[in-house]
Amino acid sequence: MAEVKLLGFWASPFSDRVIWALKLKGINYEYVEEDPYNKTQLLLQHNPVHKKVPVLIHAGKPIAESSMILEYIEETWPQNPLLPQGAYERAMARFWIKFGEEKMATICAVLRTSGAEQERATKEAMELLKILEEQGLGDKKFFGGDAIGLADIAFGWLAYLFGVIEEVAGVKVLDANRLPRLHAWIDNLKEVPVIKENLPDRQKLLGHLKRRRETHLALPNCNN
Amino acid sequence: MAEVKLLGFWASPFSDRVIWALKLKGINYEYVEEDPYNKTQLLLQHNPVHKKVPVLIHAGKPIAESSMILEYIEETWPQNPLLPQGAYERAMARFWIKFGEEKMATICAVLRTSGAEQERATKEAMELLKILEEQGLGDKKFFGGDAIGLADIAFGWLAYLFGVIEEVAGVKVLDANRLPRLHAWIDNLKEVPVIKENLPDRQKLLGHLKRRRETHLALPNCNN
Repeated sequence: MAEVKLLGFWASPFSDRVIWALKLKGINYEYVEEDPYNKTQLLLQHNPVHKKVPVLIHAGKPIAESSMILEYIEETWPQNPLLPQGAYERAMARFWIKFGEEKMATICAVLRTSGAEQERATKEAMELLKILEEQGLGDKKFFGGDAIGLADIAFGWLAYLFGVIEEVAGVKVLDANRLPRLHAWIDNLKEVPVIKENLPDRQKLLGHLKRRRETHLALPNCNN
Repeated sequence: MAEVKLLGFWASPFSDRVIWALKLKGINYEYVEEDPYNKTQLLLQHNPVHKKVPVLIHAGKPIAESSMILEYIEETWPQNPLLPQGAYERAMARFWIKFGEEKMATICAVLRTSGAEQERATKEAMELLKILEEQGLGDKKFFGGDAIGLADIAFGWLAYLFGVIEEVAGVKVLDANRLPRLHAWIDNLKEVPVIKENLPDRQKLLGHLKRRRETHLALPNCNN
């Protein structure tokens, strides 16, 4: 068994978080693709509580929940730090990661709704992203300052997946006029080589989310 | 202004978490009681995103969200560690803290329901607590082993608040026959002096939750 193994799903933004963090740290790992609609014994054994990807297996021990995996990666491989040095700045990064996880379903509700309900969902998503832009990002290049960190990784889905969600849902939420700094952040993030080189195929994602929307299977976490 | 200030609410289990962690670390702080039904400017200014207690203000800088405050306390005051040394064990503590936060509303649903709905809620709460007992706690004295840690603090509400919830709701979920190890853990936790000496008044809590249930104001987070 490889020293580091990742059970993931190609369309899961939570898997992407872990892939990016491992690559930013320069860690070799074996990737195992899981099908969320037909779970393997390996996944069920290694994440018996949630039965979901991603799961990181390091030296035979499984860690589940992407935000906990990110902290684990940061603690286990301290090179190329992804959390700031100061306790206050670290608390801020964690605060926004939690905000993102709690609000993700609301931000993505445009995918599961239509008509007046979708209009409300669009408005609500805009308001949340405005809070994120003004109070979380501010005028910084990345959430933690000049370098990419865990909060950027956690919000990375906004940079590629959310555009696909908007296209499938037929709405525009994250436009450059209303959310200019978040827009600039997306450009900054996509210039980071590890991010640019490790994004899921847009066309494939588009087809996947179209099918999810059509079959009403789009779940709250936006993807699987 | 005091070096460390805590904005809290006497009936909030999230405030209790912070009080216990500060006291276990031996940190002096000024406590400011907030009324969640009549929020002060101080609270609104220091937690503009969620507008909720607890907020820890340290050297003038505010930190919100109790689980982030716990991590901040652990990083800022390393004495009497509340997270294990090993990255894997730390990940496990964080995993269960997240599990508790995500499932708290479901575990507490008995307070907001009645009849058949409450029967379902009781069953669901039992199943979640069984997972917590078997996979989280196991045969250990505390979640992290022999000493109290952040996961114990995070689940501390089960040790005093949940019994009040059961009484108000007229159900029994956490009984010693079905959940013997979780029951033993409650006894262990209540023997820790800082916990024993810093529990909200049971009668006052009972009255508070009765009123919440009667006026249908019991919110998902069980308390305020």
